[in-house]
Amino acid sequence: MKVDGKHTRTIWVEADGKTVGTIDQTLLPHRYATIRLDTAEDAARAIKTMQVRGAPLIGAAAAYGMALAARQDASDAALERAYALLIATRPTAINLKWALDEMMASLRNRSRDERVVAAYRRAAEIADEDVEINAAIGRHGLKLIEDIAAKKPGEPVNVLTHCNAGWLATVDWGTATSPIYQAHNKGLPVHVWVDETRPRNQGASLTAWELGQHGVAHTVIPDNTGGHLMQHRQVDIAIVGTDRVTAQGDVANKIGTYLKALAAKDNNVPFYVALPSPTIDFTVMDGVTEIPIEQRSADEVTTMTGRTADGRIESVRIVPDGSNVANYGFDVTPARLITGLITERGVIAATREALAQAFPERAA
Amino acid sequence: MKVDGKHTRTIWVEADGKTVGTIDQTLLPHRYATIRLDTAEDAARAIKTMQVRGAPLIGAAAAYGMALAARQDASDAALERAYALLIATRPTAINLKWALDEMMASLRNRSRDERVVAAYRRAAEIADEDVEINAAIGRHGLKLIEDIAAKKPGEPVNVLTHCNAGWLATVDWGTATSPIYQAHNKGLPVHVWVDETRPRNQGASLTAWELGQHGVAHTVIPDNTGGHLMQHRQVDIAIVGTDRVTAQGDVANKIGTYLKALAAKDNNVPFYVALPSPTIDFTVMDGVTEIPIEQRSADEVTTMTGRTADGRIESVRIVPDGSNVANYGFDVTPARLITGLITERGVIAATREALAQAFPERAA
Repeated sequence: MKVDGKHTRTIWVEADGKTVGTIDQTLLPHRYATIRLDTAEDAARAIKTMQVRGAPLIGAAAAYGMALAARQDASDAALERAYALLIATRPTAINLKWALDEMMASLRNRSRDERVVAAYRRAAEIADEDVEINAAIGRHGLKLIEDIAAKKPGEPVNVLTHCNAGWLATVDWGTATSPIYQAHNKGLPVHVWVDETRPRNQGASLTAWELGQHGVAHTVIPDNTGGHLMQHRQVDIAIVGTDRVTAQGDVANKIGTYLKALAAKDNNVPFYVALPSPTIDFTVMDGVTEIPIEQRSADEVTTMTGRTADGRIESVRIVPDGSNVANYGFDVTPARLITGLITERGVIAATREALAQAFPERAA
Repeated sequence: MKVDGKHTRTIWVEADGKTVGTIDQTLLPHRYATIRLDTAEDAARAIKTMQVRGAPLIGAAAAYGMALAARQDASDAALERAYALLIATRPTAINLKWALDEMMASLRNRSRDERVVAAYRRAAEIADEDVEINAAIGRHGLKLIEDIAAKKPGEPVNVLTHCNAGWLATVDWGTATSPIYQAHNKGLPVHVWVDETRPRNQGASLTAWELGQHGVAHTVIPDNTGGHLMQHRQVDIAIVGTDRVTAQGDVANKIGTYLKALAAKDNNVPFYVALPSPTIDFTVMDGVTEIPIEQRSADEVTTMTGRTADGRIESVRIVPDGSNVANYGFDVTPARLITGLITERGVIAATREALAQAFPERAA
C-alpha cells in the first residue's frame, strides 16, 4: 500500500541483492524508518522484538532469514541452527513454521553451491505468493462490503477491526484490510473502527497509521468500545485477522478478538476472519484447549510509549509499583461465533467440513 | 480503607469546619495528594475534571458542593445556580442528581440563616449513609465469595473487576470492592484481576493502587484479557460497579463492562453488579435505548499519562496525527447477562420484579 503517496511493500531485498530491508514497526506511528537485515540473527531479533510482526510477514521475514543464513554458511548444520533460531522467536504463529519448512524443503536436496540462489528465490516466491493470496482475499471480501454498501447507498460501510491484520502484517494488502483497501480503491465509502488493541496498541499505532497513509477514513477506539457500537448499529461488519485457524475453524488471534466476536454474535453483526491458507493448522482441532497461548513481557502492560508534546519518544509507567501484571498475547474465538472465513479461495464457513473441502490437499 | 497503613475516607470536612478535603485522583497511582474545595465552583471543577469520580463519591462531593455554595450565598437564586452548575458536570451519574435533590429538599424550606448548618449536616449524612450502604453491600457480597472459597479450600478466589468501583469511587469500602475488602479483612484468600480500563485506565491506576494500599493480592490485565481468563476457568466471579441501573435491571457502567458480561455468560462465570440503591433509576426501563451515553474528550484516547523512568509525570501521544478518535464513556449491559445485583438490602435478581420488591418505596 502507499506510504507518503508511494507504493511500498513491507519487506524487500536491498539494491545490493543480499541484505533485506523492512520497516521498524516499533517506531510507528511516530517515525517511519526502515532497517536492514544482514544475518539470520538480525532476522530473528527483528521478529522477536516485533520490529517485524504479523503472521504472514513473519513468515516472509523468516524465509529471508534462512536466505541470509545460507549466505553466511550453507551447510546442513548451519541451516538447522538458523531454523532452530528462527522458529523459537514466536511460538504461536503457524506461518513461521510453514515458511521455514518450505525453505528447508527447497534447500535440503541441493548442493551447497546452489543453496544461496535457491534460498533467495524461494523467499521471494513466498513473499510474492503472500501478495497474491492477500489480493485474492481482498477480492472475495470486497463482495461482502459491496453487498452492505448496496443496502445503504450513499452511507459509509462501517467495518470494525482488531489489532493489525493490515498491510504492515503482510507483504502487501494485508488480510483483514485487503477487502477494505480494495473497496476504497474502487471508490466505495468505507469507514473503519480501529480497536486500539492493548497492550501493544497495534491498532492505534499500526492500523490507523497505514489506513491514514492510504487515505481510508477511520476512527480509533478503545478496545472496550466495540460492544457499545454494535448495540447501536454502528458496525456493519467485523473483519479481523488470525495467527492460527484450527481444522474445525477456531481462530487464535490477538487477545480481545473473542470479546468482539461475542458482541457481534449478540447483535447479529457479521464477524469475519480473513486469512491466508498457510494460517490453517489442520493438526489442531479444539483451539481453546489445544493452542498454547504466549505470555509476553509485563513491560508491555506496565509501560506505554508515545510522543511527548515536544516531539520526543518517551515511555511512561502506567501501573502502580508493586502491582502484579499478566500479558497473554492471544485468545481463541470458537468457530461458533464466526460468520465466515475469508480465504484466497473464497469465503467459507468456519467448520471442519468447509475447511476440508476448500483445502483438500492440506486437510488430508 | 487504608492509605500508607492509615484508615482514610475519600472526602472529609477540613479542620476549619468549612472547606472540604478530597483526593486528587488524577495524580494516582504515581502521587497521593489531597485537594481543598472552597467553593461550589471548586467542587464542580473537581467532578468535571475527574479529580473526584465514581458515582457515589460524585454524589457526596456534589452534596458538599451545595454546602460550600450555601456558605458563599444561601439565597434561593444562588442555590439554584449551584444546583445547575453541579448537575451539568457529569450527565450519566444518577447519584449526582439524587444527592443534589436531597440537598435542595433539606434547604428549600429553611430560613437563610439555618441553611449553612443544615447543608453541612445533610452532606455529612449523605457521606455517612454511603459508608453504611457500602458496608452492607460488602456483607451481602461476602457470602458469594465465601461460598466459592468453601468449594476450593486453600486456593484463592479469583474475582474480576472493571474500572474503579472501589473505595476511591465512594466515601469508603467501595461497591464492587466492598465484598473483596471484607473477605480480605476476614482472612479469606482473594485475588483480583483488575481490568486496566481504557481509556482512562482507572483500573490500573486507581483499583490496583487502592487494592495494593490495603494489601489485597491483584493482577492488572489489559481489557482484552478477561474473556481468555474466563475460558480457562481463571475467574470465579466478576463483580463490577455501575453508574445507573434501570427499573428492569439493565446496567450502565464504564465502557467495556458489556463485553465482560458477554464473556461471563459464555463461560458460566457468575457476573454480579454491586450498587447502592440511589444508583437505581426507576424512571428508565430499557438501558440500551434510553440511557444517553456521554462522549468524552478525544485526548483521553490519544494521550497517555504516566511516570517516566526518572520520575517525572509526562503525557505521550499514542495515536497517529490525523486519525479520528471516539470516546464513549459507558456502555449498557442488558439485565439478561447479569447473575445478580448486590445491594445494601441483599443480593437480588436483575429483574423489574425483584427491584420493585426490594425497593418498593422508590419503585412506586
